[in-house]
Amino acid sequence: MPTVFPEDSVGLVSPQTLHFSEPLLLTCGKTLPEYQLVIETYGELNAARSNAVLICHALSGHHHAAGYHSESDRKPGWWDSAIGPGKPIDTRKFFVVALNNLGGCNGSTGPSSVNPATGKIYGADFPVVTVEDWVNSQARLADRLGIQQWAAVVGGSLGGMQALQWTISYPDRVRHCINIASAPKLSAQNIAFNEVARQSILSDPEFHGGHFQELGVIPRRGLILARMVGHITYLSDDAMGAKFGRELKSDKLNYDMHNVEFQVESYLRYQGEEFSTRFDANTYLLMTKALDYFDPAATCDGDLARALAHVKADFCLMSFTTDWRFSPARSREMVDALLAAKKNVCYLDIDAPQGHDAFLMPIPRYLQAFSAYMKRISV
Amino acid sequence: MPTVFPEDSVGLVSPQTLHFSEPLLLTCGKTLPEYQLVIETYGELNAARSNAVLICHALSGHHHAAGYHSESDRKPGWWDSAIGPGKPIDTRKFFVVALNNLGGCNGSTGPSSVNPATGKIYGADFPVVTVEDWVNSQARLADRLGIQQWAAVVGGSLGGMQALQWTISYPDRVRHCINIASAPKLSAQNIAFNEVARQSILSDPEFHGGHFQELGVIPRRGLILARMVGHITYLSDDAMGAKFGRELKSDKLNYDMHNVEFQVESYLRYQGEEFSTRFDANTYLLMTKALDYFDPAATCDGDLARALAHVKADFCLMSFTTDWRFSPARSREMVDALLAAKKNVCYLDIDAPQGHDAFLMPIPRYLQAFSAYMKRISV
Repeated sequence: MPTVFPEDSVGLVSPQTLHFSEPLLLTCGKTLPEYQLVIETYGELNAARSNAVLICHALSGHHHAAGYHSESDRKPGWWDSAIGPGKPIDTRKFFVVALNNLGGCNGSTGPSSVNPATGKIYGADFPVVTVEDWVNSQARLADRLGIQQWAAVVGGSLGGMQALQWTISYPDRVRHCINIASAPKLSAQNIAFNEVARQSILSDPEFHGGHFQELGVIPRRGLILARMVGHITYLSDDAMGAKFGRELKSDKLNYDMHNVEFQVESYLRYQGEEFSTRFDANTYLLMTKALDYFDPAATCDGDLARALAHVKADFCLMSFTTDWRFSPARSREMVDALLAAKKNVCYLDIDAPQGHDAFLMPIPRYLQAFSAYMKRISV
Repeated sequence: MPTVFPEDSVGLVSPQTLHFSEPLLLTCGKTLPEYQLVIETYGELNAARSNAVLICHALSGHHHAAGYHSESDRKPGWWDSAIGPGKPIDTRKFFVVALNNLGGCNGSTGPSSVNPATGKIYGADFPVVTVEDWVNSQARLADRLGIQQWAAVVGGSLGGMQALQWTISYPDRVRHCINIASAPKLSAQNIAFNEVARQSILSDPEFHGGHFQELGVIPRRGLILARMVGHITYLSDDAMGAKFGRELKSDKLNYDMHNVEFQVESYLRYQGEEFSTRFDANTYLLMTKALDYFDPAATCDGDLARALAHVKADFCLMSFTTDWRFSPARSREMVDALLAAKKNVCYLDIDAPQGHDAFLMPIPRYLQAFSAYMKRISV
């Protein structure tokens, strides 16, 4: 490991691409004839194959969760604060697997991939995938890596939904579920925000019904708006207030209808524009639909405790006081159902001003509690 | 009054258009050479001219606050629950004046009007107007109507900001300020949501820099998105949950990326589409900018109490427990400043599940408290 990286970093990492040729039947009824998943791993699988931890990503995440792709990389992976030697997911103890989900736009098969049936880019023809489908594809990934049982499946937000679904779909294959800043299903307001994001993309004239790539364009405006509205829901009102307040972009008010006046406007536009250069519009639609559809209690008349009856994993849930996208109350719904289903569950609501984004941040109390739980896991 | 209208309705009403030929200097430095305001009045001005109440409207409001324009009208004015014989703003006691603000799209001079300097529609050339400008134009309206002093200036949301500004700009001309579900200035999050709405409109290819009317098109997609995101902020999470939950639009899930699955999506799309047929995009931009700019404490180093030092009006403030657009905490900021400035202030936080929209709704406790305050006003 080059000395340029911090001592608690996993250092230089390289993604791997795994091909799966067995067709995958999806919840929507369609079948994906073949697919590939891009992954990264950190640490070493032990001889007993009992120390593997799966990292599930959220809406805009991917396989690059920790470390650096090159010595000139300015930023490490998206969850570098939680993964590495001495960190909560300690790579001296655990073998960590992170992937880009099916439908993603970072190397795994998704709307930007070529449809083998037609020889053209899937675009809008890529099927809707659900959290259950992801978990099934991840189970095949576990098979491929020779992992019969995960020591833990870990995820925040939409990643937490996958971790929860793992315990339901494959009760014998997960010992611990770490579910952070998540929810057992979306509220009407959550769906409403997703719908605004989707309409932003769908109504962009450059979306072309999802077949924009064939035409060499991207629905940039739609992606910008989708990210802007999403971004507001990731931050707390207080965090935005503390960060920007009513600070002006220039010295004085311009009274201009078309340009920004306040720093917060400029910040949001920048976030949207940056995102639009790196994310696929069809993947964005697909991720928001996966969020909307997730509702494991639906098959049990809305009784989550019943849906969790056969679960064998132990649970650690964490939420953040100022998260209004998936508020602490949403975590408590899961805690209540787990207790009603007589499962082992540990829950912590962490005082943090950052809103939903807190789950990605190096908040000492959060990382301490996370570490303490991970240390308890025997491998 | 025809018998088809309810007994507590002001009945059939007609708007009037008043022309103002004296130029109005605006906060932005520009001057509006002439303008017209469309108004409605309910009740009779008494001989002492001491019973006049001004109604200030919010973002998408207008002059038609109560009663019906024809016998076939399905819906009364937007605040019919609060204005009429026996209602909080009792038209047997008060002479009520409601107007469409400058920059509006319901008959008062605004971006859809013809610019006398060019003979063309203003469009994007209509100047930015602020809450202070509106209050100045309303003061001229008061002069025209022979009203030296309002018994009360009343408004909810952006309307409440105008009511507050009246007490600062014209301390001798307002006896009571009724400020409902409002705020002394926008938070960074409030500005952020406005910026998403503005970007939706500005980035719509049919906006044409604000000169779409000359081209015979409207930025419909932008207006739909702006309204959708706005609408989410008007309702509480609980209200949306109670109204829609996760109810499906059809019997079962379709797993379709481009169409709605849940009732809440369908509702939002409808709200957006309906709005886009009746509201002007330039007016929408202008209204959100007026909201952003409002900050009466800015001239006093952020000290609202100091900004209110010379105010003479008595105040009644009301907020709603589930309003997260302008939360009760924002009303308390005003109450605290008014108390620090030694003003008479009465404040009530009303338990209501409807979110920000509650201020428009016939909530018994709200209307009772509103009535009780208005009854105390001597005319």
